[in-house]
Amino acid sequence: MAAQSLPAKRWRSEKEFPLENGQILPELEIAYETWGELSDKGDNVVVILHALSGSSHAFSSAENPEAGWWEELYGEESPLRMGGYHVICANIVGGCYGTTGPTSLDPGTGAPYAAGFPQVTLRDMVEAQRLLLEGLGIDQPVTLLGGSMGGMLILHWMQDHPRQVDRAICLATPPRSESFTIALRSIQRDAILSDPRYAGGLYDENSFPEAGLALARKIGMITYRSPEEFNERFGRDVKDPRPHFLEGLYQVQSYLDHQGKKFVVRFDPNTYLYFSRAMDLFDIAAGHDSVAAAFSGCETRVLLLSIDSDFLVPIPHMKELHAALIEAGLEVDLQLMESRYGHDAFLLETGQINQHLGNFLQSG
Amino acid sequence: MAAQSLPAKRWRSEKEFPLENGQILPELEIAYETWGELSDKGDNVVVILHALSGSSHAFSSAENPEAGWWEELYGEESPLRMGGYHVICANIVGGCYGTTGPTSLDPGTGAPYAAGFPQVTLRDMVEAQRLLLEGLGIDQPVTLLGGSMGGMLILHWMQDHPRQVDRAICLATPPRSESFTIALRSIQRDAILSDPRYAGGLYDENSFPEAGLALARKIGMITYRSPEEFNERFGRDVKDPRPHFLEGLYQVQSYLDHQGKKFVVRFDPNTYLYFSRAMDLFDIAAGHDSVAAAFSGCETRVLLLSIDSDFLVPIPHMKELHAALIEAGLEVDLQLMESRYGHDAFLLETGQINQHLGNFLQSG
Repeated sequence: MAAQSLPAKRWRSEKEFPLENGQILPELEIAYETWGELSDKGDNVVVILHALSGSSHAFSSAENPEAGWWEELYGEESPLRMGGYHVICANIVGGCYGTTGPTSLDPGTGAPYAAGFPQVTLRDMVEAQRLLLEGLGIDQPVTLLGGSMGGMLILHWMQDHPRQVDRAICLATPPRSESFTIALRSIQRDAILSDPRYAGGLYDENSFPEAGLALARKIGMITYRSPEEFNERFGRDVKDPRPHFLEGLYQVQSYLDHQGKKFVVRFDPNTYLYFSRAMDLFDIAAGHDSVAAAFSGCETRVLLLSIDSDFLVPIPHMKELHAALIEAGLEVDLQLMESRYGHDAFLLETGQINQHLGNFLQSG
Repeated sequence: MAAQSLPAKRWRSEKEFPLENGQILPELEIAYETWGELSDKGDNVVVILHALSGSSHAFSSAENPEAGWWEELYGEESPLRMGGYHVICANIVGGCYGTTGPTSLDPGTGAPYAAGFPQVTLRDMVEAQRLLLEGLGIDQPVTLLGGSMGGMLILHWMQDHPRQVDRAICLATPPRSESFTIALRSIQRDAILSDPRYAGGLYDENSFPEAGLALARKIGMITYRSPEEFNERFGRDVKDPRPHFLEGLYQVQSYLDHQGKKFVVRFDPNTYLYFSRAMDLFDIAAGHDSVAAAFSGCETRVLLLSIDSDFLVPIPHMKELHAALIEAGLEVDLQLMESRYGHDAFLLETGQINQHLGNFLQSG
């Protein structure tokens, strides 16, 4: 019920993995996939950082022909394919798609970590990605591409290891999590945590917090889209016209139910909780005087893509990031994407993204 | 745990109460409160219609000195008090503050109706209010005042009984519920319904769906306010700095927890479900060619108050209502309230409301 086993490649660290909070993961395995050939110089790498519900399977491949979560970004005419890049996408540490996370066995106990997994941070996630690159022998600066949580990871990577990041494309990425998004995420966690079947994280296939995880997903879906899209798409269309709340159903409810059901068979509740909380903890200026000061010494060339209907990462938040990166002396461009899809436009508006991505990769 | 017994007056119908869906309530009792004297002609009545979580206790009184949910609208210099009105506020049918609802005993079984209560509609709620007025001997046209669900009730009342409504003031009121708000409300209901202690509605004080009702309230609170207010008020303030999702807590989470806890000791989950669903069913143009056609023959003088930060009832939805009422030939004014409080400004911005209310009641 929890994580699905994808036919991804696995890389295993030889060493234990120290975390930002001082705890240590005794073992680290990372599931990853690649597309395109690595150049002789090893200088054509694009690393894709996935968001909350993603996996290493960004695109289809010979090994796994199923469409990926960003499929059109590696379409026939796409800049990533046409540019001859070696694209890497790895499941983030704490994930449930093959990389070490709460569903992995704790070698100390022989049982799954569950909620006993350390609270990984975005920095930990970046370090795991960097270990993978090192393990794969990639020592040239890379291009980073990601949206939402993926974009937050990119900002940390740029901040902590500026020379490793040649170019960065961040979609729907704020400089910090503010109260409102913390509130939205925390009620999603509440939905899981208050399901008795969550059982302190010790659920299994026979007693799985389906209701809680489905509700978390449904709350999430509402924040990922826009009122306009919902209203245009579903209007007041009815699925079951009976009036009583136990029976009647609008189409939009049926749609959300379907999204919830699809999610519970593919995602692990504990991973959801760890990733959700890690995003709450995100504040790129923490320990610095300002967002700009946090990028002192960074020379990454940056493209920021902001979505006009994004409720979670509104344009002013990306403008703040843009201004700070300029202040820090970076070469940075902010482009606005027009979309009805809200935050999810970073996944859905692949035509616009390919356009911006092509312009950015070809210039400079 | 469920409803609180307020020291309100009670009026009991002599007859059974037929509902819009064809079902019949064998008994109808209504809890109500009044402020100010009824004039000799009986022509100074203002009826306040409460919203989802309200009660008859709009203002404090000698009988119940506790502050009401709209206290400042009957303050020392308020237009309602200064204008010498006879103000009536009754708990809506289906409610949990003294009026017949799911916590009432079904005379057919001797047990509480619970989820066996008929699905009341906004029209049913209006008819119950009208019966109360008739029972109190009020036969002159009245002024109606309400926000959110209260405003929806006013629109139905104007539509179905135009001659009874002399003036109407609707705050944060849309012409219909659209998919997005249906979605937001339906996930609040999911939170209650998926709590095992809801038990098909047959909970009691010893096994009460606290977690579900608290989560519903927390989801609601997020939609009632604005991102700006949350972000300014709570920033990234921390309550418990431990990183793990089971332990760490931001101030905004603590605030929402508090709101949830306050709510579960004062509200009935079934009433929440009935009212929430009744709002989903709201479409003032249903059965008519247009919103304007729905008000054909109505001569009520109307004030619409729209809130610039209202996420649930955005300005364009109130502009649509405004245009339709003009098209129908009504004398109607739309005023914009500037506020950081989102939808809840209809409860909180009492200074602005009093100002608009005073101008409206004195004019025309």
